[in-house]
Amino acid sequence: MDIHDLTRDLNTKNDTKIVLLVADGLGGLPQEPGGLTELEIAHTPNFDALVKQGVCGLSLPVLPGISPGSGPGHLGLFGYDPVKYQIGRGALEATGIGFELTSGDVAIRGNFCTLDLAGNITDRRAGRIPTEESSPLVEKLRNVDIPGVEIFVEPVKEHRFVVVLRGVGLAGHVDDTDPQQTGVPPLEPVARDAASERTAEVCSEFVKQARGLLADQPKANGCTLRGVAEKPQLPSYQEVYGLRAAAIAVYPMYKGLARLVGMDVVGEANTLDEQMDVLAANWSAYDFFFIHFKYTDSTGEDGNFAAKVAKTEQLDQSVPRILALNPDVVIVTGDHSTPSMLASHSWHPVPTLLSARNCRTDRCETFGETQCIQGGLGQFEAKYLMSLALANAGRLGKYGA
Amino acid sequence: MDIHDLTRDLNTKNDTKIVLLVADGLGGLPQEPGGLTELEIAHTPNFDALVKQGVCGLSLPVLPGISPGSGPGHLGLFGYDPVKYQIGRGALEATGIGFELTSGDVAIRGNFCTLDLAGNITDRRAGRIPTEESSPLVEKLRNVDIPGVEIFVEPVKEHRFVVVLRGVGLAGHVDDTDPQQTGVPPLEPVARDAASERTAEVCSEFVKQARGLLADQPKANGCTLRGVAEKPQLPSYQEVYGLRAAAIAVYPMYKGLARLVGMDVVGEANTLDEQMDVLAANWSAYDFFFIHFKYTDSTGEDGNFAAKVAKTEQLDQSVPRILALNPDVVIVTGDHSTPSMLASHSWHPVPTLLSARNCRTDRCETFGETQCIQGGLGQFEAKYLMSLALANAGRLGKYGA
Repeated sequence: MDIHDLTRDLNTKNDTKIVLLVADGLGGLPQEPGGLTELEIAHTPNFDALVKQGVCGLSLPVLPGISPGSGPGHLGLFGYDPVKYQIGRGALEATGIGFELTSGDVAIRGNFCTLDLAGNITDRRAGRIPTEESSPLVEKLRNVDIPGVEIFVEPVKEHRFVVVLRGVGLAGHVDDTDPQQTGVPPLEPVARDAASERTAEVCSEFVKQARGLLADQPKANGCTLRGVAEKPQLPSYQEVYGLRAAAIAVYPMYKGLARLVGMDVVGEANTLDEQMDVLAANWSAYDFFFIHFKYTDSTGEDGNFAAKVAKTEQLDQSVPRILALNPDVVIVTGDHSTPSMLASHSWHPVPTLLSARNCRTDRCETFGETQCIQGGLGQFEAKYLMSLALANAGRLGKYGA
Repeated sequence: MDIHDLTRDLNTKNDTKIVLLVADGLGGLPQEPGGLTELEIAHTPNFDALVKQGVCGLSLPVLPGISPGSGPGHLGLFGYDPVKYQIGRGALEATGIGFELTSGDVAIRGNFCTLDLAGNITDRRAGRIPTEESSPLVEKLRNVDIPGVEIFVEPVKEHRFVVVLRGVGLAGHVDDTDPQQTGVPPLEPVARDAASERTAEVCSEFVKQARGLLADQPKANGCTLRGVAEKPQLPSYQEVYGLRAAAIAVYPMYKGLARLVGMDVVGEANTLDEQMDVLAANWSAYDFFFIHFKYTDSTGEDGNFAAKVAKTEQLDQSVPRILALNPDVVIVTGDHSTPSMLASHSWHPVPTLLSARNCRTDRCETFGETQCIQGGLGQFEAKYLMSLALANAGRLGKYGA
C-alpha cells in the first residue's frame, strides 16, 4: 500500500494554494546538553506567528535512526516513500548538475583515473585534477561514438563527470568498473540482468574509446564508471495529487529532484528575495509551490552554529512575502536534520509546522525541536506530509462511503 | 520493505558500545485512576539521571492494542518485525527450556494424555501428573527409534515435554493431534504442505511407538503433539547490524531468543550482580549487550504491585555498574507491559529511555509512563529501536546521496 493509492483517487480540484518551504537540514542539536538548538536560538517571529495559528510536529524523513541524503530526504517530503522509490547514484549525479533525464536514459558517474603502461590503475582519481583541467577532457570524451546510442558527457568537479546513455534497450543494472584499489586494471562492466547486457556492452565500448581519446594525457588517461542507473520512474504530482506544481530553487540538485516528480522548475532565482519574486510572478499559474533554501544545510555541514542561526533568521524574513500572496496552506520543514554539532546530515526528526484555516492548532508557541515534540502532528513519516497538505487545502475527498 | 534492508547496507564499524537493558514487563498501570504506576512510584535515581540527559518515548511492542508474548516482545526489541518473523510454538518451547535448535530442526510440544481401551482420550493432560513422574516417562520416549531421524525428547513441566526432530527433508507444517476434547482418539498428524509429509509420517510413527513404550502407565499411556514448528530463520545481528552481540540472561527462554538472532550467550549469571560481573568481563569482546531482567514481569504476573516496585528499584541500582564501563548508548525498556493490576502481559506501550551523546534530549525528568508520553522519541514501534541505537552509536551511514 502506498498513500498515493488513496490520494490518486481522492484528490479534488479547487482554487487553493499550497506553499512548501523547505529549509534544507533544518533540524539541529544544542551546543551543550540541555541547551537550545540553532532553530530555538534563532529569532523567528514570522515562523512563531505561523506556529501559534498552525499545528506542529516532528517529521521522520525515512524511518527512525536513518540519516537521509538529499534524494530520499526530498522524495519523502514530496510524498514518495523513500524506501520504495530509490534514485540510483548516476541518476542523482546527473540530476545534481541539472541534466534533464528523459524516460529510458541511463546515467553513470565517471571518474578519470591514471593507468600505467600495463593498464593497471595507479591513481583512482587521476590526482584529483582541477575542474579547469578535467573539463576539456570531458569535451574530448564527447567524441566517443557508439552506433544506436546517443551519449552525453558532462563535467561535474575535479576528476568526476557524468555520462548519460540514451537509446533503445538500455537498462541500469551494471556493476561498477572501479575496483576500489590500485595496482589492478579497471573491472569490465558486468550486467546484473539480461535487460542490461546492451548497457554493459556500451559501457565497455565507451571505456575503450575513452582510453584512445585520453591516451596522451599524463594523469587522466583512463576512466572508471560507477553508479549506473536508469532514470527513476516516479508518478507525477499531477497524477497522484492533481496538483500543478512549481519548484523555486537555486541549486540544480533540487530543481532536478522536483523535475523527477513532474514539477515545473520556474524562474532563475539566485537569492531568496529573487525566489520570492518568482513565487509572486507564478502565483496564479500553479496550485503548489516548493521553495528550497539551501543554506540551513550548508552552514550546518560546515559546523557553523552561528551561521546556521543567521540563515534560519534570514529565511524567517521571507515569510511575510509568502503570506502577502494569501496562501491556503503553508508548511515549513526540512528534508532532514543537519546539526552544526555533527557537521553532517543526521537521523533526528525534523521540526515541521503546518498553517491552514482548519488545521486544529496545538499548544506550540514558537518554532523549535522541543516545542514540536508536543505538537498536534506528533511524529510522522515525511511521506505523509503531502496528504496532510492536500487535506488542509480541501483537496482530498472522503475515503469510502 | 524491512528496516533491515537499510541497516544491512548502512551499518558501519566503530568502537562504540551499546547496552540494551530489558526490564521484562516494565510498563504498568496505577492502582487507582489518576494514581502512579509501579515505575512511577519506584525510587529510581539512576534511571532518572539517564532520562535527564537522554531522550524518552513509548515503545509499541508489536502494534497498538497487541499484547505480546516473550517471543514477539523480544523480537521487536531486537529489531525484527514481530509480525513478519514468527517463532512457532514448538520452537519457542524448545528455546524456553534451553534446547539449542539447529537449522532444519523441527520442534514439537508434546502432552502426555490418558487413553481408554478403545484408544479414546479420557484426560488430555494425563491428570497433570507431577514433573517427578513425567520425567522418567520422557526418558522412556527417548527409545523411540525412527530410521533417518535423530529424535530428542526433553521434559518441560508436568504433562508437557518437547520433541525435536533432526534430519533431512523435514518441514514444520503439520497440524496438531490434540483433538481439544475427550471421548475421541488423538488426531492423525496431517501435513499442510508436501514438504511436511515426511514430518507427518515421523510424528505418526513417534506416537505409535510412544503408545507401546507407555502401555503399562496408569495415567500417561498416550501423547498428543502440538505446535509443530521449524527453527525460525532469522538473519543474525552480525549480518543486519554488523554487531558482535552478547546476551546476559538468567532464564533459558531469553538466552534462547538471543541465540536465535545470533547473539552469543555469555556467562552463567544467576543474579543481577552476577550479570553485571559478566557484562564487565565481556566488555571488550562485544559491541552490543542485551541484559535481561525477569522479575519486573514475574512480580507483575503475580499481581504484586509492591514487589514490582521493589524489583524496579533493584534494577535501577545496577545502572552505576553499567555506566562505569562508559557505554556510548544505553537503552532501558521492556519487551511489553505487565501491569500488576492485570496480572498479565498487556498492550500498553512501554516506557523507554535512550541515553547517548547526540540523542537530542527532551523535557522528561523522571522515568515513567506519563513522562514518556512527552518524550522526544514519541511513540514508536519497537522494531525501530535498533536503528535508533545504531544511529546514536554513529554506526549507520547516510541513506542515499
